[in-house]
Amino acid sequence: MSKVVRFHQTGGPEVLRFDDIEVAAPRSTEVQIRVKALGINRAEVMYRTGQYVIDPQFPATLGYEASGEVIAVGAGVEAFSVGDLVSVIPAFSFAEYGMYGEVVNAPVHAVVKNPAGVSHEEAAATWMMFVTAYGALINYGKLSSGDAVVIGAATSSVGLAAIQIAKMAGATTVALTRSKEKEATLRAIGADHVLLSDDPDLTGHILRASGSRGARVVFDPVGGPNARNIIRAMSHDGVYYQYGALDSRDIAVPVMDILTKHIVIQGYELFEITNDEKKLEQAKAFISAGLTSKALRPVIDRVFRFDEIADAHRYMEAGNQIGKIVVTL
Amino acid sequence: MSKVVRFHQTGGPEVLRFDDIEVAAPRSTEVQIRVKALGINRAEVMYRTGQYVIDPQFPATLGYEASGEVIAVGAGVEAFSVGDLVSVIPAFSFAEYGMYGEVVNAPVHAVVKNPAGVSHEEAAATWMMFVTAYGALINYGKLSSGDAVVIGAATSSVGLAAIQIAKMAGATTVALTRSKEKEATLRAIGADHVLLSDDPDLTGHILRASGSRGARVVFDPVGGPNARNIIRAMSHDGVYYQYGALDSRDIAVPVMDILTKHIVIQGYELFEITNDEKKLEQAKAFISAGLTSKALRPVIDRVFRFDEIADAHRYMEAGNQIGKIVVTL
Repeated sequence: MSKVVRFHQTGGPEVLRFDDIEVAAPRSTEVQIRVKALGINRAEVMYRTGQYVIDPQFPATLGYEASGEVIAVGAGVEAFSVGDLVSVIPAFSFAEYGMYGEVVNAPVHAVVKNPAGVSHEEAAATWMMFVTAYGALINYGKLSSGDAVVIGAATSSVGLAAIQIAKMAGATTVALTRSKEKEATLRAIGADHVLLSDDPDLTGHILRASGSRGARVVFDPVGGPNARNIIRAMSHDGVYYQYGALDSRDIAVPVMDILTKHIVIQGYELFEITNDEKKLEQAKAFISAGLTSKALRPVIDRVFRFDEIADAHRYMEAGNQIGKIVVTL
Repeated sequence: MSKVVRFHQTGGPEVLRFDDIEVAAPRSTEVQIRVKALGINRAEVMYRTGQYVIDPQFPATLGYEASGEVIAVGAGVEAFSVGDLVSVIPAFSFAEYGMYGEVVNAPVHAVVKNPAGVSHEEAAATWMMFVTAYGALINYGKLSSGDAVVIGAATSSVGLAAIQIAKMAGATTVALTRSKEKEATLRAIGADHVLLSDDPDLTGHILRASGSRGARVVFDPVGGPNARNIIRAMSHDGVYYQYGALDSRDIAVPVMDILTKHIVIQGYELFEITNDEKKLEQAKAFISAGLTSKALRPVIDRVFRFDEIADAHRYMEAGNQIGKIVVTL
């Protein structure tokens, strides 16, 4: 028997229940993991409240990220063995798998061995943030030294990951935030410039920060009317990746900028990477190398116990964290 | 001596002057053409009024399109001979060349032989409209049968060319226009559906016209707030090409559509094709084949005499034409 977190109706954090269930033996495409740490994601809060891209079927499991020890492997699984320390990448649907449990099955393509020296808490905090940032900045954006990149909502976990990935690629990083309180944290992570997203001269500041050529890549989960002030500071052949829809209003795109500079505005989702076998393998290799070299270090804001998982959801909903919320078992 | 149209200051159509000049012998990268017909473009009106992407140096020559007979070739030019009937593609700057003249030099890369059976008037009306539409719809958009394409400002010369090119590729064409007066013309050219751009249910109409999957390609010179109603009717992996900035207001981009459908919003200019040798050769081949097969037929609204060229500019500024304004010599 394993304690697994499920919900039987949508609602507040209190709908999360600890159900004792018998976890099935792993199939030929699965491994079974004794979970040591979980990463909490906004997607899980949205799924719990019925606002996610898929609707829950009850009882509903959830959880995109976990780290732990392999305790069984499906018939024919050769990539992993019992005893391996592994973590799980968000490369599946909650309709199929959920990582919130003491013992869970995970699909082999979404499992990766933890690099030496990386704790379960760090490994559980790694994959959502780093793969999301990697996909836009490296896989698509081909960021390299000489480029300047603007990172919106920079204190979010994906924003912090983006700063590190951009620095690993040698780019100049321009971090946007709503208050200067977190400037020291952003600079410590690798932000070369920290700007207030509502600065009346945001365009001018970005241009100066990028040596007047403008930003070749923008990685922004916000959008909305303020996007125009960022796009106006983009360079020729720039690409603006929108990934979060944090502002539900239309993105304001200044027409002469995209026309004369051939700028591209593009929607981007993590699943473009995780649903593509080759891109996912490249992401695993890039991020594992970064973890090993310590160029990439997941930022953990706070750690909760497993029996406090509803509090971990409440804490995420309050929205004051800088970095990842992790639950340990 | 040749009469060449130039202007010595920016201003209204009256600044266009007929200057008698001695045209230099063609250089090794040029041919000399006795012009029989000219195409008039909005770019020339903007250049004359000082509102174009480059500023005129006086006296300023202008003109992107012409058709005529080769009367001399530069040393070593082998692709063309005296007596060839040719036309000129907008693949140069007004700072270097201008086609408004009785005798002009043109750069070899921008010259193409007229297909048999195509008149000078038609040839002079071909390249701006068809290369512009070809670049977005075929070179980038890879339009094919099964696709639906939305064409904004469909009664413009580029819009009419886009309808024909899209039909040549086998796509379903949805033409947007400001009034239903021109519906019969649009249908005769190849529009499968004609919609009013300010229809309150534009999104629903486009979805129904495209078999509910939505438009995979949008080719729109307008933009502005109404763009949201088009983008909402786009399919997964759709691309919206903005090429005209006719509405100077920000393009309104609905965030959930671009995020969940991975839609791309892209600025596009003709020069992306004409400044790239390989793309330009592919464009010449595609369009010449279309002209020969009559799948592509330039739409000419009205023909002026050379001495009426200022009137031709006035007529363009009035903005009531459907198709191309041509001047004959």
